Amino acid sequence: MTTSSYPSKLLESAVNEFAKLPGIGKKTALRLVLHLLRQEKEMAFKFADTIHHMRQEIMYCKSCHNISDSETCHICADANRDNTLICVVESIRDVMAIESTQQFTGIYHVLGGVISPMDGIGPDDLTIGPLLEKIKSGDVKEVIFALSTTMEGDTTNFYLYKKFEKYNVATTTIARGVSIGDELEYTDEVTLGRSLINRLPFEKTL
Amino acid sequence: MTTSSYPSKLLESAVNEFAKLPGIGKKTALRLVLHLLRQEKEMAFKFADTIHHMRQEIMYCKSCHNISDSETCHICADANRDNTLICVVESIRDVMAIESTQQFTGIYHVLGGVISPMDGIGPDDLTIGPLLEKIKSGDVKEVIFALSTTMEGDTTNFYLYKKFEKYNVATTTIARGVSIGDELEYTDEVTLGRSLINRLPFEKTL
Repeated sequence: MTTSSYPSKLLESAVNEFAKLPGIGKKTALRLVLHLLRQEKEMAFKFADTIHHMRQEIMYCKSCHNISDSETCHICADANRDNTLICVVESIRDVMAIESTQQFTGIYHVLGGVISPMDGIGPDDLTIGPLLEKIKSGDVKEVIFALSTTMEGDTTNFYLYKKFEKYNVATTTIARGVSIGDELEYTDEVTLGRSLINRLPFEKTL
Repeated sequence: MTTSSYPSKLLESAVNEFAKLPGIGKKTALRLVLHLLRQEKEMAFKFADTIHHMRQEIMYCKSCHNISDSETCHICADANRDNTLICVVESIRDVMAIESTQQFTGIYHVLGGVISPMDGIGPDDLTIGPLLEKIKSGDVKEVIFALSTTMEGDTTNFYLYKKFEKYNVATTTIARGVSIGDELEYTDEVTLGRSLINRLPFEKTL
């Protein structure tokens, strides 16, 4: 018996491809491939072809760098959205998260990550250039930083803040504080400390 | 804003395809699709094409019904394996599990499941017919039942046992007992009871 116990090379390659995906080990990969084998051929073909087609056809909005089916995404193309207000986010998942709140009427700018020297990601790896162009144009009134509240997120916030300082644009950041539904006892001290410093007039929370 | 917050139809279809896989929800599906989008196009194409190719080309061994790259799988084709000894299993994962023990020198027969009226699986949905043909041929000396130790597994064992009774074939089942490494205290009473009834001469365990 060989060390590989797969009964088929085809099966093994498919398992290896699935196992390259994040959070999917060999056992889960095998379960997924066997599931596709139990389905009608057409179901498995549809799965594969949808992925191929998606990767082939998908575009990134030339303005905000969000994923899009067209050159300009539906948010940037929406005349009802305020294009003087730009919310800077890391990824398209953050766009989806903010959109689902239905609280934001401006447009986005997807950076594609945060500055992280540990992972070898510098400012040039992000879409900071195009963002700076937008600000230089003078059409932007406010930039909202909505990055992760991590060291890397904070570094990126500060980098952008310094870049934008000399232009006539307001820079804000989303509020940090105790999450709705959280118990104070279990809130970390940095968050709790900041939420005391940045306390709000009670009327504002009504 | 629409209820769907996906910025792209292509993305949404790909997420939906992934979310059809067992144990993969919409959030995980999105994470996997975005991972494929971050990769080079060729990586995503290779993923999709490997799946397509696998589903297109894969075969089932005409003798044991195991997954195979050829008409007869490498186990059935192996002249060193004892083809008078057949181990009956539910799925190819069980073949892989038993092969990895390196303790079995016979061949397999993959049933494709167990009899389960609750799931609408009857004897005709399994590969019981071809197994019976093999036994009728008189070439088989022993059939080992290695099905799950569930109600459905036991039902299937009993069904097969009754079918094979009139032929000159020994029927055995894999040992049930306390797993190696288990503590008696935490072993369920059925297993513990059976392991007392089916106790072995100590010399056999040496």
